[in-house]
Amino acid sequence: MKIQTLTLGLVLAFAPLARAQEDPLHSWNATGPKAAVRSFVERVTKAGSPDFVPVEERIAVFDNDGTLWAEQPIYFQVQFALDRVKAMAPQHPEWKTQAPFSYLLSGDTKSFLEGGQKSLMAVMAASHAGMTTDDFRATVKEWLRTAQHPNTGRPYTQMVYEPMVELLKYLRANGFKTFIVSGGGVEFMRAFTEEVYGIPPEQVIGSQGKLKYELVQGQPVLVKLPDVQFVDDKTGKPIGIETFIGRRPVAAFGNSDGDREMLEWTTAGKGLRFGLLVHHTDSLREWAYDRKSHIGELDKAWEEALVKGWTVVDMKNDWKTIFR
Amino acid sequence: MKIQTLTLGLVLAFAPLARAQEDPLHSWNATGPKAAVRSFVERVTKAGSPDFVPVEERIAVFDNDGTLWAEQPIYFQVQFALDRVKAMAPQHPEWKTQAPFSYLLSGDTKSFLEGGQKSLMAVMAASHAGMTTDDFRATVKEWLRTAQHPNTGRPYTQMVYEPMVELLKYLRANGFKTFIVSGGGVEFMRAFTEEVYGIPPEQVIGSQGKLKYELVQGQPVLVKLPDVQFVDDKTGKPIGIETFIGRRPVAAFGNSDGDREMLEWTTAGKGLRFGLLVHHTDSLREWAYDRKSHIGELDKAWEEALVKGWTVVDMKNDWKTIFR
Repeated sequence: MKIQTLTLGLVLAFAPLARAQEDPLHSWNATGPKAAVRSFVERVTKAGSPDFVPVEERIAVFDNDGTLWAEQPIYFQVQFALDRVKAMAPQHPEWKTQAPFSYLLSGDTKSFLEGGQKSLMAVMAASHAGMTTDDFRATVKEWLRTAQHPNTGRPYTQMVYEPMVELLKYLRANGFKTFIVSGGGVEFMRAFTEEVYGIPPEQVIGSQGKLKYELVQGQPVLVKLPDVQFVDDKTGKPIGIETFIGRRPVAAFGNSDGDREMLEWTTAGKGLRFGLLVHHTDSLREWAYDRKSHIGELDKAWEEALVKGWTVVDMKNDWKTIFR
Repeated sequence: MKIQTLTLGLVLAFAPLARAQEDPLHSWNATGPKAAVRSFVERVTKAGSPDFVPVEERIAVFDNDGTLWAEQPIYFQVQFALDRVKAMAPQHPEWKTQAPFSYLLSGDTKSFLEGGQKSLMAVMAASHAGMTTDDFRATVKEWLRTAQHPNTGRPYTQMVYEPMVELLKYLRANGFKTFIVSGGGVEFMRAFTEEVYGIPPEQVIGSQGKLKYELVQGQPVLVKLPDVQFVDDKTGKPIGIETFIGRRPVAAFGNSDGDREMLEWTTAGKGLRFGLLVHHTDSLREWAYDRKSHIGELDKAWEEALVKGWTVVDMKNDWKTIFR
């Protein structure tokens, strides 16, 4: 009896592992996108296949916002910036009367949003610049530990798409090096990508502010400046890939028009290539949006996907599970 | 007899391998620097040691010019640019009368050099910009295949320091990820670093020009522009490390004042760290230069090395072999 109980315990304990070994993409329904991913990986990894790609060239690039984790109702990094401004307000009494901070602090969201990109940039600069990179990383980690998503109440690092995390692992198990190529801030993302996605900091490419090297009491620090060094979005994505990776990926994964050039650049390479767009179609389990969306607009990239045969994931129908 | 001959043959065939297994740094003399490197690596890799560093944090950064390969009588990339201008001259008849190209083409080196940095930048821009990144890579590869060093007559990729290549391999065999962090152009270096040093393109950080993404007859290309995006030298080195790698290295290797901040930043981190400077002391087998040198000046970094206990390699006395 005892041995039977133990055996049953072992079976239960290892059941998720066994399932994962059987099917590394078990959160994907048995529809077209899953078959397309598996077929691509099998063809490029099979020795002797005409589509074989050597391990060192197996580079896969992933957008982050809307591709690996959610991006509604606003980009999570923007929520971080808004929360930071509120937390920093006691040290900035001048913000009480200074737009756009005054709108934000008094809860006048309408006036704040009317300021558009300019309001947003002021908040991003105030919340991101002027501190050392070490302090910034600690601040992001603390926010991720405590902040909750306004709709779900979950920590932001649990607003991650389980099927995409499975895909990252599946690709790595097949010799791929997985990179993030995102419009988000590189230092913001690096605070969680290793723990949440298994992607180390040196494989995260993002938008960047300028940095300044200084000695403070003999100790070197890197201070974040408010000026922009590089915007890793739209045409910036293939440029970021060339600058940071130095070779063309064989697979690219995105969800919006911001990822269009990254998919173009990747799939225009010689040999078998793979492009995939995540289409947000699930208004119950997530959000449904595409052409007219203010965040994550999917319009021109979608049209190009249809013409070029990029795989389009219909989240509602193709994913068994959405969040981890 | 036959078996003995075979055995002897095998012994001879595997002798270099056996030697390498015994001593991964066999081109280093048994002097202080070799002992310092080995002691550092043993301490950070020994499980349970108070100095133990987890594999994912074993980041080592290397300067290139003067640290991994030679840099005299001029930086090899500058020689490439001069050779390119000469090769491109037939397509640029206007250069015959246009300084600084006219000086270069007529052999008036004195007038060319009097133009200083400005002449040099004009030549770098003319030889590096305006082509696609793919074409540029092919051009560099062809130059490296055919060009010869003016003093030794050897291909430039043979002007590489054997002891440093051994050191790269030794670190990688101990779980380190090796990066290049150089003032040289990132695309120039990536044309040879994988083959020559075993360092893949995504682990090469260097100075960068701006790039432009374009569609040419429906095909995407990245075109090199003459504008500077990032200078990876002096304070630019720790900034490049933070931007590209996103964590502080535990070991840094350089040879000149351009590497000073990289060694400062690396060795100021918590826990055991390692800094090393290659001092060019061998006028017979290589070149001897330091404080007053026009190229690879070693002055302030050397003083800091003495104060902070960074290891200084005396090439003449510490290296058994110089070139591969």
